[in-house]
Amino acid sequence: MKYIGKRVPEIHGWAKVTGQATFTDDLRLPGMLHAKILRSPHAHARIRGIDVSKVLQLPGVVTVMTGKDTPGIKYVAQVSDMYPLAMDKVRYVGDPVAVVAAESEEIAREALSLIEVDYEVLPAVFDPREALKQGAPQIHEDKANNLVLTIKRDFGNVDQGFAESDFVFEDEFSTQAVPHCNMEPRSSAALMNTEGVLQIWSGTQSPYFVRKEVAHVCNLPISHVQVMEIHCGGGFGSRSKYCEDEGVTALLAIRTGSPVRITFSREEEMTTTRIRHPFNIHLKTGVKKDGTFVARQMDLIVDKGAYCHYGPAVTGYAAGTAASHYRVPHFRFTGDVVYTNKQAGGPFRGFGAPQAIFAIESQMDTIAEKLGIDPLELRLRNANQSGDTTACGWQITTCGLEECLQKVVSSTNWQEKWKAEKTGRFRQGIGLATAIHVSGSNVFPDGEFSSIEIKMFLDGQVSVYKGSGDTGTWANTVIAQIVAEELQLPMEKVRLISMDTETTPQSLGSFASRVAFEDGNAARMAAIQLRNYLLESASARLQVPGEELQIEQGQIVYQEDAEKRISYGDAVFHSPRCVGHLLNSFYQYVPNTVRLTPQGYANVSAAYAFSAQAAEVEVDTETGQVRVLRFTVAQDVGKAINPIAVEGQIEGALAQGMGYALTEELIVDPETGRVVSDCLDRVMLPTVMDIPQEQIFLVETCDPEGPYGAKGVGEIGLNPTAAAIANAVHNAVGYRAHKLPIEAEDVYYFLHPEKR
Amino acid sequence: MKYIGKRVPEIHGWAKVTGQATFTDDLRLPGMLHAKILRSPHAHARIRGIDVSKVLQLPGVVTVMTGKDTPGIKYVAQVSDMYPLAMDKVRYVGDPVAVVAAESEEIAREALSLIEVDYEVLPAVFDPREALKQGAPQIHEDKANNLVLTIKRDFGNVDQGFAESDFVFEDEFSTQAVPHCNMEPRSSAALMNTEGVLQIWSGTQSPYFVRKEVAHVCNLPISHVQVMEIHCGGGFGSRSKYCEDEGVTALLAIRTGSPVRITFSREEEMTTTRIRHPFNIHLKTGVKKDGTFVARQMDLIVDKGAYCHYGPAVTGYAAGTAASHYRVPHFRFTGDVVYTNKQAGGPFRGFGAPQAIFAIESQMDTIAEKLGIDPLELRLRNANQSGDTTACGWQITTCGLEECLQKVVSSTNWQEKWKAEKTGRFRQGIGLATAIHVSGSNVFPDGEFSSIEIKMFLDGQVSVYKGSGDTGTWANTVIAQIVAEELQLPMEKVRLISMDTETTPQSLGSFASRVAFEDGNAARMAAIQLRNYLLESASARLQVPGEELQIEQGQIVYQEDAEKRISYGDAVFHSPRCVGHLLNSFYQYVPNTVRLTPQGYANVSAAYAFSAQAAEVEVDTETGQVRVLRFTVAQDVGKAINPIAVEGQIEGALAQGMGYALTEELIVDPETGRVVSDCLDRVMLPTVMDIPQEQIFLVETCDPEGPYGAKGVGEIGLNPTAAAIANAVHNAVGYRAHKLPIEAEDVYYFLHPEKR
Repeated sequence: MKYIGKRVPEIHGWAKVTGQATFTDDLRLPGMLHAKILRSPHAHARIRGIDVSKVLQLPGVVTVMTGKDTPGIKYVAQVSDMYPLAMDKVRYVGDPVAVVAAESEEIAREALSLIEVDYEVLPAVFDPREALKQGAPQIHEDKANNLVLTIKRDFGNVDQGFAESDFVFEDEFSTQAVPHCNMEPRSSAALMNTEGVLQIWSGTQSPYFVRKEVAHVCNLPISHVQVMEIHCGGGFGSRSKYCEDEGVTALLAIRTGSPVRITFSREEEMTTTRIRHPFNIHLKTGVKKDGTFVARQMDLIVDKGAYCHYGPAVTGYAAGTAASHYRVPHFRFTGDVVYTNKQAGGPFRGFGAPQAIFAIESQMDTIAEKLGIDPLELRLRNANQSGDTTACGWQITTCGLEECLQKVVSSTNWQEKWKAEKTGRFRQGIGLATAIHVSGSNVFPDGEFSSIEIKMFLDGQVSVYKGSGDTGTWANTVIAQIVAEELQLPMEKVRLISMDTETTPQSLGSFASRVAFEDGNAARMAAIQLRNYLLESASARLQVPGEELQIEQGQIVYQEDAEKRISYGDAVFHSPRCVGHLLNSFYQYVPNTVRLTPQGYANVSAAYAFSAQAAEVEVDTETGQVRVLRFTVAQDVGKAINPIAVEGQIEGALAQGMGYALTEELIVDPETGRVVSDCLDRVMLPTVMDIPQEQIFLVETCDPEGPYGAKGVGEIGLNPTAAAIANAVHNAVGYRAHKLPIEAEDVYYFLHPEKR
Repeated sequence: MKYIGKRVPEIHGWAKVTGQATFTDDLRLPGMLHAKILRSPHAHARIRGIDVSKVLQLPGVVTVMTGKDTPGIKYVAQVSDMYPLAMDKVRYVGDPVAVVAAESEEIAREALSLIEVDYEVLPAVFDPREALKQGAPQIHEDKANNLVLTIKRDFGNVDQGFAESDFVFEDEFSTQAVPHCNMEPRSSAALMNTEGVLQIWSGTQSPYFVRKEVAHVCNLPISHVQVMEIHCGGGFGSRSKYCEDEGVTALLAIRTGSPVRITFSREEEMTTTRIRHPFNIHLKTGVKKDGTFVARQMDLIVDKGAYCHYGPAVTGYAAGTAASHYRVPHFRFTGDVVYTNKQAGGPFRGFGAPQAIFAIESQMDTIAEKLGIDPLELRLRNANQSGDTTACGWQITTCGLEECLQKVVSSTNWQEKWKAEKTGRFRQGIGLATAIHVSGSNVFPDGEFSSIEIKMFLDGQVSVYKGSGDTGTWANTVIAQIVAEELQLPMEKVRLISMDTETTPQSLGSFASRVAFEDGNAARMAAIQLRNYLLESASARLQVPGEELQIEQGQIVYQEDAEKRISYGDAVFHSPRCVGHLLNSFYQYVPNTVRLTPQGYANVSAAYAFSAQAAEVEVDTETGQVRVLRFTVAQDVGKAINPIAVEGQIEGALAQGMGYALTEELIVDPETGRVVSDCLDRVMLPTVMDIPQEQIFLVETCDPEGPYGAKGVGEIGLNPTAAAIANAVHNAVGYRAHKLPIEAEDVYYFLHPEKR
């Protein structure tokens, strides 16, 4: 193949490195106003009143809005509980209370100080276990004990399974909150145009979700909201659904009749946007003597923060993960999703899997140790195989898990390193972990589909219309490669037009590792259909059978006589399907999956990716400091449509996973509920200087459903990383981490209990 | 019908009257540069050299380009003869020589004075008859005697026709140059985006023509040029093809990598954009004693100015007009299109018909007088009837010409006024004239078609995608009405998205009186198809036969049991054709016409509109001043989809026609070739204070091919106006105008020959 599997450069790369790419904050709309949000300084308080009278006296202020100035409609979400602006209560430090639109950002910021809010401060609760207790402060009126809901799964007979087990292991784990740390703080702009259509620019992953939520809170018909293309400086899930910035700019745009933009400060980005949910995990696994898993129960307390957003889905996905990649015949799961007076969690690369896998893969090594089985052997013995259906109904078709494990082990000399004696101040260890991930997930009421339209011009070049965004994942590049391949066109003759709810075909969005797989399938089929149209036209024109024609770089050539040829452009012109000098091809891909049932049993994805990772660490026994020396990854990517893109996804995921394992944490002041680590520096995001050696192997299982065999690759790279590091630390110094991040202090006190 | 035939307000009206509509000059693109063109001060000169060295020293200047900095490709046009910037010669006062892009318009303007051009001034010629003479200055190297080409028609046997005639009339007429006088001076902006796509904003009538021409002169593939929607302050033909502004901004955008805008000054707008071609007309008509026409010969000298642009097509259309609306069995035509060193002509409302009809309808009254036949009677005797095929092949289907004549005559009390004795200082007269016009014209190599796409959302509202622009003609409103009617949706639930070559379906453009007819047919068929999809879905859902369902305002209702109903949105949701929560319908309308042959015989339009006008004037015999007192118009509009829109077109045309008849003229200094009347005031555009009483009758012949019977209405209103005024002046004081405009001075000397 000419373009598939090739290291094709990112099509937007030039625009981005030269600074020409337009991000929302680069927009200059005539008469544009700038918005700033006044946020609650209290973790929990009732709003007795808001006095905005002084604000409008400040020159340059155009309007100020509080909840009372809005239609008073909550975002849809899974449990609808959040207004664009607080109506009567604030529930975390940062909750939006009022918003100002002014002629400059400086004036808007100054205006915030003139708003007087009369708060009745209420007791707050920050720990979900405390929040569940009788008598805890009630955060939402309709949710007693702050329990949003409980996600339950129960398949097989778990009690019987534990009874039949030779050993039952029970462990507690906990994971921390981490922010997405996008390089681009959230920014969105809105304009109510003269035809009553609200136009929104936002570097979102899923324009159709934003359209739905904004139409809802603004009380507009969905057809009157248009979300448009703009570059995006990082998504990772934070921009896969909605955030309040789009709602607020929309409401201001309607009120003022002017374009309005908001750009969050770094502090707002870190302390008010969606985060990775902290989990408290109780994991119980029953095994036979030979290591065969019999039953598993996972019980979660999910710290939801102040608002629900996509917490239930994240919790449910953790269940699906916990029932898979190792065979677990009997499986039970409860996930209590609990409100606290903190920043809310939301989708974040891995979508609940990194937390669950940290627990599962850590316990795996404990089981192996107890049974005296090699950790590799224990994993291989239980690993999913092609043809498996997991306890939650996932149907594993192609499965490279075993091959990934073997590849990682063989290329790291794992056995030797694992068994090596650990002595001296700096002790090295190696740890193993694996993961599974979907390629798209049929869990949304909006269905699961991607559409692509291709238009070929008379010059033989094409424009490809793609409804989902590209948040820097090379998604557009991969789609362009697919079209280039099927039409045998150079990349520069394939133009990508993406993400405009009015003009590009509908697609669910760029999340759930779905774009290369689903948009990829749609693009491939649309391109094949277009190619057939060209051949059909050429066949009629040249008067030779279509099956004896070949396409090559803009020409359709008769194999028997290369003189008989016609350009793509001429084939377009002469095609009976040509309309307005264009040849159009449209394809909607709907995967053959089943929508998740309330019981949580369904084959939600048409393909599953697998990964095995080995982390090698060095622990300084004098300080407890952990340094990652090397990552080795073998990942079942199905087929790497663009190896640079896939490796880039894996490298990024490793860095994000390493931060998750060792340093990053959103630390909340236990008195005030205020986030202390409110900048990249304080949250301890790893920098390029912290990145270790990386060795990446792409395992190509060629999934029959994926385009050219490809599976999703966006998220899985992060899922096992923290577990692999935790296992390596244990291998090095014997410290078993039960919480993330793995802090030097904990390792140090473990090694020097006398110093505690 | 609920929306068709109703006085629905203009859908962009609110945006326009509140100043919210964005025109090109309102665009604020980040980093946008401003361009100014250095134009030739000479009517004819060779460029020996251009020194731009001082320009770049001026702070704020970004670049300067001359012809040598361009790809050196000519615009396509009908005869390709114009470069974006002069290469070696200038051919009229105003010919673009160089262009500067700078940080502000002021700097760009200042920079022009720093460009030093070394001209070798050549003798110039301004009169086309002089230009044709041996030894005249040669304007284009490849056109000897400055003859661009001769358009010829020869049908029947004209010589025999004249031989068989009882009388043969021969007259000479001449018409002047007039500018379009758009309220918005030309403005366009261009940006070469980071994907190599040149984006152009221009209030053009035909984005696809602009795309083609710009791609050509910039040497870009057509798929790399995108022309986008923006409001337009008047077209009238001047923006129906290309003008040099789009080419120049495009070239600058490519060179600088920045967005570039040019907005013409009023003087540039008046003295360098396309104008109505001056015609010298020799008209010879052979008639029987009873007034029956036998043969006609029209010979034109068309003053092309310095460049060809659409001159041949305008000339050819004059021929088609001259062979029609009255039956002319034998017809011959020659049109010499001749270069002169003046501003070039181009398409202008009527497209050659107003000139031809001025001659034909003036001569008509002369013939009537000579034969002693009532002018009305002469017209009725020869008028086209339904079923006629004209000498040039036009197939007249519905024909309201006779009805229009009778209506005008009866409602003006014409007979009495015509015969009334004319005495005193102020003498009143009445004049009659008629016209024909196409509804779209199959003369372009690009074919003749319009496409419309409609998308219905889950909320039951629709977006309508329309490839042509709306230059203020209410075109978008009419299309929205059609969709509202067929889908029984209130107007506010129909959103129009028009004119973006990347995202709207292709359509030839807004010219040739084609939009209501062709886009209208496409819209109607697309809407009917969408309605059928809705009924099909509702039928399956409600389990009742589709033919027993009715649609009404967003609901599909079972006639037998009104409880059985489903909303449009639900019908969309449940339709098997629903893709991505949208129900799409696309229709391309291709009229059943024949492309104009080189011989000029073809049925180029699927319907022909007719008009009769009466002008009543008062001539001041002491000054020669002519004042129009009243216009009475009866126009065969087929069906008035929106009577306000149709009446608006007619009222505007009458004003434009009155200016053409009496005052407007682009006067060229015979020494220098410079346009003297270079502003609205000097060109003597009528103002609202000059507009007389108007009485408008819409004759509805309900053409079987038009949407709801409609025909094109955009141009025809102007075609007979000058002739009607001329005939009224003759009726009042006996002065037969052989040239336009009819100047008070000429009338005065006619009445007072002794004063000459």
